[in-house]
Amino acid sequence: MPNAHIVKSYDDELRLLRDQIAQMGGLAEAQLKDAVDAVVRRDPELAERVVRADARIDALEHDVMQRTIRMLALRQPMAADLREVVSALRIAGDIERIGDYAKNIAKRVKILAQQMPVRSASAIKRMGDLVQEIIKQVLDAYVNLDTDSALEAWRRDEQVDALYNSLFRELLTYMMEDPRTITPCTHLLFIAKNIERIGDHATNVAEILFFQVRGTLLDEERPKVDSVELAAAGTTGGRA
Amino acid sequence: MPNAHIVKSYDDELRLLRDQIAQMGGLAEAQLKDAVDAVVRRDPELAERVVRADARIDALEHDVMQRTIRMLALRQPMAADLREVVSALRIAGDIERIGDYAKNIAKRVKILAQQMPVRSASAIKRMGDLVQEIIKQVLDAYVNLDTDSALEAWRRDEQVDALYNSLFRELLTYMMEDPRTITPCTHLLFIAKNIERIGDHATNVAEILFFQVRGTLLDEERPKVDSVELAAAGTTGGRA
Repeated sequence: MPNAHIVKSYDDELRLLRDQIAQMGGLAEAQLKDAVDAVVRRDPELAERVVRADARIDALEHDVMQRTIRMLALRQPMAADLREVVSALRIAGDIERIGDYAKNIAKRVKILAQQMPVRSASAIKRMGDLVQEIIKQVLDAYVNLDTDSALEAWRRDEQVDALYNSLFRELLTYMMEDPRTITPCTHLLFIAKNIERIGDHATNVAEILFFQVRGTLLDEERPKVDSVELAAAGTTGGRA
Repeated sequence: MPNAHIVKSYDDELRLLRDQIAQMGGLAEAQLKDAVDAVVRRDPELAERVVRADARIDALEHDVMQRTIRMLALRQPMAADLREVVSALRIAGDIERIGDYAKNIAKRVKILAQQMPVRSASAIKRMGDLVQEIIKQVLDAYVNLDTDSALEAWRRDEQVDALYNSLFRELLTYMMEDPRTITPCTHLLFIAKNIERIGDHATNVAEILFFQVRGTLLDEERPKVDSVELAAAGTTGGRA
């Protein structure tokens, strides 16, 4: 593999940058999958692997930062090229955060495995699968500079919010019915919230890509179902 | 006020960029304060003001992004100047996220005000005050390029984690003792988590500043008390 410092053309550098972003994204997607599988299977060993693997994503983010700064300094890109380099820096930040959330999910598995099982694991799995698909679609859109597909992925986040809201209510109901489930349900609530946030970061990437390609902001406000308020609506009429 | 487009010197542009970051930071700090006050006083009107005010931070972040891209294109800064411009872009992202968390806290106030009061409000206030101080210290460090002070603020985040862990256990205990508190305690848990994450973003800013000024990564791992694991240690021996 050639040393990045001696790569000849700007296009080569840009390609390396894109590859690195795609690689980070692929890792983050796999981390989410493994973290959710670890929750569902109550598998602390798999969870431990997820926790350890996060360092690779962090290292890649650092590489992307170094590379973008070097490209800005040496190549002084303009217009669309400049937007692409700046976007890469920001997208790397969002992917790094996705990795953090996956790690955070994995860390809760050790605790969950010591607690009584709760029925909601399948709903967590459904949320995880959906968010994974959204990440995949956004990453493919990034590689192909396909803003239509990015926009479509961005809109799908609404479904994630809906799943989160229904899971939130379900978990609160369990806790009220049986206080022994309070500890595991609390951790599942945070896990669900983490998955929802991963979805938000995937939509961020879609927004950054939109700006990168079209040079304008995606100012259509995402049709977000407000999870905080809905969660309230679902619980104030409940047993509490 | 002169139009930024016709500002003459690069130093002037850099000063405007710094001012904008400082202004964003000041707003985010105020938003956190108001959001926590709204929680403590159960004040939905104050909370509503916080929710509405978040748009100003978002608009400033957008301005910072436009300005940095313009500076990169027209001024082609090198070395320390380049690091400062790239850092500004990243710091603006962290501050914007702090604003989002403050808004999220505020959104829960409407629900909390309809629920029975829970004793933990004072602990939330303590966490909020501490994180606010950390943000202030980091912002002052940013303005003065004072990496020692940034590092000191960065280390204080450990205290935030400790407060969060103790609050987490306290809220779980309340829920187990009285299921009627499950809904309000769940929202307080998320509020506490949001404050803890705001602290994480403040430490991010300290790390970015360190890189900006010294040109090397702060690779001393932050002495983070692992909140997920401690929270488990505090609860597995409990009534559940």
